[in-house]
Amino acid sequence: MNRLIISIALALVCTMTHAQQLKSPDGNLTLGFEVDAEGSPVYSLDYKGKAVIKPSHLGLDIFDDQYGLAKGFEKGAIETSTFDETWEPVWGEWKQIRNHYNEMAVRLDQSKANRHIIIRFRLFNDGLGFRYEFPEQPNLTYFVIREELTQFAMAGDHKAFWIPGDFDTQEYDYNESKLSEIRGLMQKAITPNASQHSFSPTGVQTALMMKSSDGLYINLHEAALVDYACMHLNLDDRNFVFQSFLTPDAQGKKGYIQAPSTSPWRTVIVSDKAEDILMSNITLNLNEPCKIEDTSWIKPVKYMGVWWEMITNKSTWSYTDAPAVKLDEFDYANAKPNGTHAANNDNVRKYIDFAAENGFSQLLVEGWNVGWEDWFGKSKDYVFDFVTPYPDFDVKGLQSYANSKGVRLMMHHETSASVRNYERHMDEAYQFMVDNGYNSVKSGYVGDIIPRGETHYGQWMVNHYLYAVKKAAQYKIMVNGHEAVRPTGLCRTYPNLIGNESARGTEYESFGGSKPFHTTILPFTRLIGGPMDYTPGIFEMDLSKVNPDNDSHVNSTLARQLALYVTMYSPLQMAADLPENYSRFMDAFQFIKDVAIDWDDTKVLAAEPGDYITIARKAKGTNNWFIGTTVDENGYTSNIKFDFLDAGKKYIATIYADAADAHYKTNPQAYTIRKVVVTNKSKLTQKCAPGGGFAISVIEATDINQTKGLAKL
Amino acid sequence: MNRLIISIALALVCTMTHAQQLKSPDGNLTLGFEVDAEGSPVYSLDYKGKAVIKPSHLGLDIFDDQYGLAKGFEKGAIETSTFDETWEPVWGEWKQIRNHYNEMAVRLDQSKANRHIIIRFRLFNDGLGFRYEFPEQPNLTYFVIREELTQFAMAGDHKAFWIPGDFDTQEYDYNESKLSEIRGLMQKAITPNASQHSFSPTGVQTALMMKSSDGLYINLHEAALVDYACMHLNLDDRNFVFQSFLTPDAQGKKGYIQAPSTSPWRTVIVSDKAEDILMSNITLNLNEPCKIEDTSWIKPVKYMGVWWEMITNKSTWSYTDAPAVKLDEFDYANAKPNGTHAANNDNVRKYIDFAAENGFSQLLVEGWNVGWEDWFGKSKDYVFDFVTPYPDFDVKGLQSYANSKGVRLMMHHETSASVRNYERHMDEAYQFMVDNGYNSVKSGYVGDIIPRGETHYGQWMVNHYLYAVKKAAQYKIMVNGHEAVRPTGLCRTYPNLIGNESARGTEYESFGGSKPFHTTILPFTRLIGGPMDYTPGIFEMDLSKVNPDNDSHVNSTLARQLALYVTMYSPLQMAADLPENYSRFMDAFQFIKDVAIDWDDTKVLAAEPGDYITIARKAKGTNNWFIGTTVDENGYTSNIKFDFLDAGKKYIATIYADAADAHYKTNPQAYTIRKVVVTNKSKLTQKCAPGGGFAISVIEATDINQTKGLAKL
Repeated sequence: MNRLIISIALALVCTMTHAQQLKSPDGNLTLGFEVDAEGSPVYSLDYKGKAVIKPSHLGLDIFDDQYGLAKGFEKGAIETSTFDETWEPVWGEWKQIRNHYNEMAVRLDQSKANRHIIIRFRLFNDGLGFRYEFPEQPNLTYFVIREELTQFAMAGDHKAFWIPGDFDTQEYDYNESKLSEIRGLMQKAITPNASQHSFSPTGVQTALMMKSSDGLYINLHEAALVDYACMHLNLDDRNFVFQSFLTPDAQGKKGYIQAPSTSPWRTVIVSDKAEDILMSNITLNLNEPCKIEDTSWIKPVKYMGVWWEMITNKSTWSYTDAPAVKLDEFDYANAKPNGTHAANNDNVRKYIDFAAENGFSQLLVEGWNVGWEDWFGKSKDYVFDFVTPYPDFDVKGLQSYANSKGVRLMMHHETSASVRNYERHMDEAYQFMVDNGYNSVKSGYVGDIIPRGETHYGQWMVNHYLYAVKKAAQYKIMVNGHEAVRPTGLCRTYPNLIGNESARGTEYESFGGSKPFHTTILPFTRLIGGPMDYTPGIFEMDLSKVNPDNDSHVNSTLARQLALYVTMYSPLQMAADLPENYSRFMDAFQFIKDVAIDWDDTKVLAAEPGDYITIARKAKGTNNWFIGTTVDENGYTSNIKFDFLDAGKKYIATIYADAADAHYKTNPQAYTIRKVVVTNKSKLTQKCAPGGGFAISVIEATDINQTKGLAKL
Repeated sequence: MNRLIISIALALVCTMTHAQQLKSPDGNLTLGFEVDAEGSPVYSLDYKGKAVIKPSHLGLDIFDDQYGLAKGFEKGAIETSTFDETWEPVWGEWKQIRNHYNEMAVRLDQSKANRHIIIRFRLFNDGLGFRYEFPEQPNLTYFVIREELTQFAMAGDHKAFWIPGDFDTQEYDYNESKLSEIRGLMQKAITPNASQHSFSPTGVQTALMMKSSDGLYINLHEAALVDYACMHLNLDDRNFVFQSFLTPDAQGKKGYIQAPSTSPWRTVIVSDKAEDILMSNITLNLNEPCKIEDTSWIKPVKYMGVWWEMITNKSTWSYTDAPAVKLDEFDYANAKPNGTHAANNDNVRKYIDFAAENGFSQLLVEGWNVGWEDWFGKSKDYVFDFVTPYPDFDVKGLQSYANSKGVRLMMHHETSASVRNYERHMDEAYQFMVDNGYNSVKSGYVGDIIPRGETHYGQWMVNHYLYAVKKAAQYKIMVNGHEAVRPTGLCRTYPNLIGNESARGTEYESFGGSKPFHTTILPFTRLIGGPMDYTPGIFEMDLSKVNPDNDSHVNSTLARQLALYVTMYSPLQMAADLPENYSRFMDAFQFIKDVAIDWDDTKVLAAEPGDYITIARKAKGTNNWFIGTTVDENGYTSNIKFDFLDAGKKYIATIYADAADAHYKTNPQAYTIRKVVVTNKSKLTQKCAPGGGFAISVIEATDINQTKGLAKL
């Protein structure tokens, strides 16, 4: 600690004297870089004159190396450049994304070791990205990381929205506290999970969202996590300095590297407007451009699923109640069915009918395949084969039935975290999908990883998740990876990665509930790295009505559930509830049917992490907009302007809002629906219930008859 | 230790009173079984009234279980049966093998835990096999082994032929010592290896060969090692009790089991004649019958190889001297070749020519594929792709050239122990073989296993080796696995597993030499589990003549090298030296050309572990025999009778023997060749040099002219 203070002091002294500087295109951000007296690289970041990152050290600690990669450096050649390009994503929040930064690449020579590294900085108007580069050279080829020593020295005891650092799960509720309070709150924050592994009383995950007392919003994450261990942040809570804490492998080592190689980008998104954090494209911009040549088969998906009824324990994934099975031996054909298997032909057809009637393109079916009897908690190696259906699930028949109604079945590959087994079956499993009309798969990794000793976020599994996505692309298959490492923008390079869960999703409302402010934080944290398959759209909050033995409650109003289709950006959106619950509220369900899933434009109208978010999005290829607001447990009154609409046009706005007496806990299903005419001059004041929100579809009026009789906003 | 003594004493008391007994068919072996006062199963084994295994405990220690599986048992139902069947192996030492045993299956009930296990004993005339069985039942499904607690209590301080217990290698020289001396010799015994992991100062590997002071030969091993961790033996050297020591996984656990399941068989082969140990078929008989329906594509192979010149460092596996490569990026086409790459078109064609001229059916080529520049010692994940040749190796052209001469190229899959990488490429690699005319592969696992933390002999890798063999069978490919777990008779079930190295092979003669008695021990140890690709046939013992920088010496006479083709049984036999070294001794080479590799009958004429072995084998489908003798560093004078020949027939025996002044170190290439006529009345006294031996081809004389002018023995 003392050494740290001295180092920082020295760095402060040196930095100002000999610092390199890089400015963002608009000049608001200033990066400082220097090498201190011990030869340690030091960087700092200011925003409009305020410190965002105080002088912080960089470097790595590696095994079996006399010098390490943290000290003993001298500044070598420095190359600066500017980049300004606009590119089009295959799907996304915007039709076009501008990638504009000033770059500084600093060569650092370690003369004693006769080798060098490069640290590359890219400064955007909304933040910084930097990474380590290990060029090909005689004296640096193979090395093993003991720890990456990247620091992020905070300028104060910021407010933070955090989940406990963990090598195996992100499925924790968020905590809102000062940095200094993390330690005291950690134990309670670590709620039980199928697979978890915390590492520090002050360790947290990224993306980490913070707000300083002087109104700066600061977000820390990483981009382009490839063949490297996932980074967590370990806080020195005396000095408010975060240091990177990589996920170890089975032997405690943190990464096997072969130069030439680069680390992922470490990102600092910063603004004095919270909205800018959500509007930032730094993560995508730091990723490689799309590597898939023909992307015509990649399309956003709106789906339903034979899923919630199992999550609520109303029915089962498994077909029998056998305590254990051996896949190649168990006689399923003659086994006694338990009568609670949800993925049976009749039930699936009912879902297909409903999905087809309501314009959903795919139906996820979980529990379709043999092996669910003992899939969980046994550390079972050969747990699934991914191709053999249960006796009551007719793959071809159901796919054909679905297709006849314009719907497609969505595949499910639960791996039970038995990853060698999944890789052994992967080609056959993907081919089975192709042969049976599937083009998208939800994959899962529930439980402790096999190979045992590895964790969900180490280099080993990071490699696997991308392997699965790349191989899927060869089969023209889209992937939605649950329990995988949280994304870092790789969907730009591999747009068939249409989603991940990798956070606490809607299912937790059935496992005891999530904090009502959960969705006012997720876009500032989990979604910084990529879309989330949050699976919203629950209309029945009292789960004892779905299953009398389930006393959990969905901590949200119904109106807020609608809003999530806008505020939780994803090209993959699920209407997660049971058809019978939608049937009871078809007027509200209309929003889910109408809402787009691909966008030409996005505007964050208002946002405060932990409190409220209002987003408006323009549906791709249309002049229509959709607006959503989600708020915390206190409720909130939104004031929004429709000034993003085209001038001179009229739109029909259908507003789905909390009723005046709505409350996420006591009266969640009280909502109102009203239609009004809006123009770009319109304004709306809308009260949201605690744990509530509102959703608005804004459809261009093409015919004067459409606006007849409607009030104008 | 005290507890052990007390337990044994108690067991002794109880055993005699209430013991179950089982006798071998000929009555010489008696198995005793009892459950002691603590409910611990105890067994013992006597041979002709002498103790082989003194009362020894059985059981397992499992995690997270209140009772464990070692005590608290009561004897339940006992079922006895007899089995007597003769079966034909696809290839082997005998045309037919008799499987004759008396069996006792003891049910052990653990009433407190409301579960049971079964211990099944099979008593053959030459030994015992037993295993644990975990039947399907409600209260025993999934469990994790902390340790198997199988004891083998020796009756005295036997002489043992042992190598250090190790989770990663068997490539140690053998030690001959008393059990009490193991501890003092262990440190010196652990010589360096690319991947090694010893675990106990008195831990040794199986098969373990011993000789008691009263002339009993005792061998401990296991059979049918499937989905279980490899067993080592840890010696209590005060009481001379071995206990099973399973190979741990990355987390130190010793096996994940799902009932119904069985452990491998633990085997005790015993006789008062050393020859009987080598004649035993217990290991094969305890394995499942052949599971491959059509075995017509499985054929023994006599081969040569572009290999020894790299092992002696005369040339290289690698094509360039680049310090490191990335397979998908390195520009091999334009890289500067190092000029020492052995697997180039010209050189390979020379080997093909020689192999074809001399009747060899296959040519192994190592170093044919990209990636050898940095294949070793880097813990490199994506190290080989198994399908991309170096620029100077024309796969189709060379295979075509070979085929035109009646030879086939043999594939090489060095995995560098990067096992996920191998499995990811395996289908493509096997298909590549099929597409390019290969039908057999030598696979290797040099280096520490990836997934890191696993070892070569844990349950994880045991599963992998069999996975590779089973998948190979789907492609009609034969497998010869180097650095794999030592075999346990699985070649009966999967006869496409035509060999393993999995011991210290001939290559070590180039790495400093092996002890001259090495091959007088290997058949008693390593070969108990299955054939070994020992790759004998080195004619130039002074390796500085092959490569001036290599000062190693092959510790064998040339005549003994010939004998090894008989004494080291294998359906896969290599003439391992360089063609130019054979060319200098074509008269001796004739034996290698003549010797068969598949047999109708085998007779061990004389054997003493560590001293000498003489074996005679009858070539399949002929009346010809081949005899080989290998002796230790003292030399030996063999006295053999030819009484196994058919009465009334004459045979031409060509005897390749050490010259009178031969010596493995100082005069290894001094040999004599003489032809004599033999009948079943003939006898031979033949002096063998230190580290020497002799080889004899015994060809039926079908024509009186063949015997003209020859002396009669």
